[in-house]
Amino acid sequence: MKKTIITISREFGSGGRTIGHQVAEKLGYPYYDKELIKTVAEKTGFDPNYVEEYGEYSPGKSLLSLLSSYTGTHGTMGGMSVYDFLYVVQRKAILEVAEQGPCVIVGRCADYILKDREDALHVFIHADEAFKAERIVRLYGESEKKPEERLKEKDTKRAVNYKHFTDRTWGDCRNYDLSLNSGKLGIDHCVELIVQLANEE
Amino acid sequence: MKKTIITISREFGSGGRTIGHQVAEKLGYPYYDKELIKTVAEKTGFDPNYVEEYGEYSPGKSLLSLLSSYTGTHGTMGGMSVYDFLYVVQRKAILEVAEQGPCVIVGRCADYILKDREDALHVFIHADEAFKAERIVRLYGESEKKPEERLKEKDTKRAVNYKHFTDRTWGDCRNYDLSLNSGKLGIDHCVELIVQLANEE
Repeated sequence: MKKTIITISREFGSGGRTIGHQVAEKLGYPYYDKELIKTVAEKTGFDPNYVEEYGEYSPGKSLLSLLSSYTGTHGTMGGMSVYDFLYVVQRKAILEVAEQGPCVIVGRCADYILKDREDALHVFIHADEAFKAERIVRLYGESEKKPEERLKEKDTKRAVNYKHFTDRTWGDCRNYDLSLNSGKLGIDHCVELIVQLANEE
Repeated sequence: MKKTIITISREFGSGGRTIGHQVAEKLGYPYYDKELIKTVAEKTGFDPNYVEEYGEYSPGKSLLSLLSSYTGTHGTMGGMSVYDFLYVVQRKAILEVAEQGPCVIVGRCADYILKDREDALHVFIHADEAFKAERIVRLYGESEKKPEERLKEKDTKRAVNYKHFTDRTWGDCRNYDLSLNSGKLGIDHCVELIVQLANEE
């Protein structure tokens, strides 16, 4: 069966977003990443920067920030924490996007939200530390933190967020149909493989 | 760079061994699985059935059996438990096999043992429960245990064994260059993809 819904989960710096863009372009499918943020921001009235920050990244392991999300420091929506509320809206947006037709969706637990669709191909992109560190400094510039710290911080938040909403382990092969090491295989080859698999009947 | 060393790790029932055989045949590389058992059995003097049972499967989560491996109920080799001794011999056999030239190696922590080889492609094969359950009953017949129990038992032992010797999590995407859901993608497509990636310069 042809796979017309492509979800891409990725380690920070692995090139997952670039791969998603190129796959969407080659297949002629719409690409959703920031576009989902815009939709969710419009539906909730939140600032898009806020949605971007809290829609994919959990508050992390800080007990204080976890508590504050439940005690209302960040506000509550119908008894839900802001994080949970954003997830609910984001989940609905992802289900709607998938119903509309072929698409490529990057991040945001889309693999879990669309796990039962036979026409979906769920992909995970990862790479070694050196490959990712070089990429983030080149693409996003230097910061006061070491690249290794930036990688760890972002992926830890993604893993915590994923665990919270899916009760699954982020990066476990069994969640995805295809996992690729973009550092070893190269970004172009990853794009080719995904396009090829998506097109197979 | 062409990948001439292919390691295949697999969930029980996912078709990983079949995929390994077909990849080896298509690439014209020797295939190692039972062959390694024979080598290790010859070098150690152990019965091949014993090597097969304990060379890839840890004693599992039973405290009694774990204790017995340290207290010598199963015997010790130079202060090592039999499991550790078998691993050491098996590791040496895998390193030798990889040094001899192109090959396909199934199981036995070969992905970890050969993790630093640039010319290696490390693959993990997994599938959904229904696909695996149907396959094991068809290939290995019925048993007094339910297929789901047999799957869980075998993979739990593999995961414990892998953790013990590698300190890594079995089934984590980051250990492999390529992970494939054989149930969703089909065994033939998995074979094609691996051969294609192995041949890419």
